Amino acid sequence: MKISNSPAMRRMPTYLHRLFHLRLSGQEWVSCADLAQYMNIPHIMVRKDIAMTGLAGNKRYGFRVNELIDAILRLVGWDKVSSATLIGAGSLGAALLGFDEFRLYNFVIESVFDSSPDKIGRSIHGHEIYDLADIRKRLKFAPPKVGIICVPAVGAQLVADILVSLGIKYIWNFSNVCLNVPPGVIVQREVIAGGLAVLFAKINKAESGEEIPDGE
Amino acid sequence: MKISNSPAMRRMPTYLHRLFHLRLSGQEWVSCADLAQYMNIPHIMVRKDIAMTGLAGNKRYGFRVNELIDAILRLVGWDKVSSATLIGAGSLGAALLGFDEFRLYNFVIESVFDSSPDKIGRSIHGHEIYDLADIRKRLKFAPPKVGIICVPAVGAQLVADILVSLGIKYIWNFSNVCLNVPPGVIVQREVIAGGLAVLFAKINKAESGEEIPDGE
Repeated sequence: MKISNSPAMRRMPTYLHRLFHLRLSGQEWVSCADLAQYMNIPHIMVRKDIAMTGLAGNKRYGFRVNELIDAILRLVGWDKVSSATLIGAGSLGAALLGFDEFRLYNFVIESVFDSSPDKIGRSIHGHEIYDLADIRKRLKFAPPKVGIICVPAVGAQLVADILVSLGIKYIWNFSNVCLNVPPGVIVQREVIAGGLAVLFAKINKAESGEEIPDGE
Repeated sequence: MKISNSPAMRRMPTYLHRLFHLRLSGQEWVSCADLAQYMNIPHIMVRKDIAMTGLAGNKRYGFRVNELIDAILRLVGWDKVSSATLIGAGSLGAALLGFDEFRLYNFVIESVFDSSPDKIGRSIHGHEIYDLADIRKRLKFAPPKVGIICVPAVGAQLVADILVSLGIKYIWNFSNVCLNVPPGVIVQREVIAGGLAVLFAKINKAESGEEIPDGE
């Protein structure tokens, strides 16, 4: 995947969110125009995004909601169950544990670790918080696919080293630091403030009288 | 700004994070190569990103850390103080209230509202939580620049309508729903699961034996 496709991949959960909603409403078909209007992005962008799935639409009705959901889940790799462990049960970790939509993506956070005595043994959204000191014992026989790092910057590299040593190759990094990992380990770093920078870029354009770009 | 520049804008907080760290370490100069290595992205990407600021580097030493910080803050629009109000003091809202880095971006969350009796009157990271029912009374004379929506999807449109009616034109939307807003109002929607989709796209590529793209 070219890096330039990342924005398209980022839109996939939004399509899914809408499609699941439509399915629950009993709607059988959806058009690119419907999705474009909902998301306030250009029609052609939706068309290109959906083309990535390889699904051919019906000229008159668009796409079957069910088929499009399956095609997008397959494209992203969410058609199979993926397991994850989450390290760091602070506010952000708790927010992720409360994300019901992960279930729709077959993404299952199986275990939660923290090193704070205040948190160990407590339960958040039905997940018991384990002691980080026990992580090797608990995960060594069946390491999950993805490690989610939600600890403060200062502890993030140490946690990454532990995850890598357990054989976890895919890391979703919410700590505000770039991690040093061996080749073959993939890190996706989330920078919440990145969205704020994009918002401000749009504000600057708007206030300087330029056209506001489409899209939320 | 073209939408295609969004990935560059998203990287700006990471540059700033690194530059503030270097400044605290007493480092005066930084090169594109240093930043590229830290972020694990191609050198040329850093060069292009910094070129957006218009700052000319020194051939031998690169950029003065201080000047580069100022140039990036100016580029993003973070050289001036911006005020914000945050609606929804759940886990995600609490995480945002605890983000110390916002201070570095001159981004100040001035007020926090929630409608839950459990939360009203409590304090999170030094912010008192006000009753959402009082938002008009509290903000009508000096509405902040940005409204941050952290409420569940079902209440997000209502909150957006209130913010717009108060004259707030810029919305940072963390709720999992696309908002309907009048022309001139800019919404930046954060989809946390979007990053997960990007991670999975990288995993798919890696597992199919294709080259793993650079960059966290």
